[in-house]
Amino acid sequence: MIIMKIAILGGTGDIGEGLALRLALKHDVIVGSREEAKAQEAAEKYNNVLKENGFRGGIKGMTNLEATKNAQIIILAVKYQVMIPTIESVFDELDNKIVITPIVPMSKSRLCAYTPPEPGSASRQLCAVLPPGIRIVSTFHTLPAPRLADLKDPLGFDLIVCADDEEAKMVAMKLAEDLGGVRALDGGSLEEAKLVESLTPLLINLAIKNKTKPLSIKFV
Amino acid sequence: MIIMKIAILGGTGDIGEGLALRLALKHDVIVGSREEAKAQEAAEKYNNVLKENGFRGGIKGMTNLEATKNAQIIILAVKYQVMIPTIESVFDELDNKIVITPIVPMSKSRLCAYTPPEPGSASRQLCAVLPPGIRIVSTFHTLPAPRLADLKDPLGFDLIVCADDEEAKMVAMKLAEDLGGVRALDGGSLEEAKLVESLTPLLINLAIKNKTKPLSIKFV
Repeated sequence: MIIMKIAILGGTGDIGEGLALRLALKHDVIVGSREEAKAQEAAEKYNNVLKENGFRGGIKGMTNLEATKNAQIIILAVKYQVMIPTIESVFDELDNKIVITPIVPMSKSRLCAYTPPEPGSASRQLCAVLPPGIRIVSTFHTLPAPRLADLKDPLGFDLIVCADDEEAKMVAMKLAEDLGGVRALDGGSLEEAKLVESLTPLLINLAIKNKTKPLSIKFV
Repeated sequence: MIIMKIAILGGTGDIGEGLALRLALKHDVIVGSREEAKAQEAAEKYNNVLKENGFRGGIKGMTNLEATKNAQIIILAVKYQVMIPTIESVFDELDNKIVITPIVPMSKSRLCAYTPPEPGSASRQLCAVLPPGIRIVSTFHTLPAPRLADLKDPLGFDLIVCADDEEAKMVAMKLAEDLGGVRALDGGSLEEAKLVESLTPLLINLAIKNKTKPLSIKFV
């Protein structure tokens, strides 16, 4: 089993917490934040959760830039509104790395709507601002943050993974399954990512309208 | 239990077959087609399938216009390309009825893409051409035709139902569950229907890329 070095930018946020906790069971995880102190505080909190659940801690906290420098795989766990400034702030350390985006552009009034930018999806927009050498993978959109952060939740979800680079896609599919209780499915290229990004507002709407727990998806 | 009169326009096609077979177990079903002879031929074929499976037949075949005239609920089981001409051909018989659309506008090259028309979805486009008195419900998009037509398949799917009229939505949710092995979920209004229509190309792509049987969806 290969241990990867994973940076979770915006790892102090809701989806970042669950990803950090679960990936830290099998990989080296660095939580990134704009402020180093916030990152270290979150890392300490997550390590305590791991220890309370009988696992070894070991999550580190760094600035987004330092986290990126020290990792092979970068997960962009930030809101769509700060996607571009966040990726630009770590630009100098991205060479030859894999960037994973779970970002979903959406608006919310009574229910949620998918509001993709001009290139058709957040994934394609990210593609447009990054040089070709950096491989982008689009996945993790359909993980409900509170359930991911609850290490006792067995999940039982499917996760769709889209990428233009097949090798990067395979690595991300392996990471998805390393979350535990997740089956990874090939969703095609980044061109198909918009079909996956739009699942998030759908899941939120279904939970609101049907008064359920936060929902994820399974293909049967 | 209330027995509804249901017309399935384009009921000789792939999704029409499964809907006719399963709904006929609990309701009065009329298969519609542009040509009466084709509709009657399909009805006879479906009745034979029902009898082979130990059920009573009783499905009728009529022109789309006659089928609409004799039904309370109209299911538009036609391809997007003929949605408008089909609904226009039965316009005179639609007053006070419920129109159910499972229609998905999509293109296919290597994989499928969702290609909604200007109003944002096929459902909203249908809305724009019909007078306000006719209630539109958007559902049945995620039913894989071959599995629906196999009465031995236990399904085990969720179906999302979107409509602006809550009463029409409730009726359609009941019909969805009458298919057997289906849980109906409230997907919101017709404004949200695009999130549901786009599931169909996603399901087709996942089955192609992961070499699975035709897939449907469950929210967990």
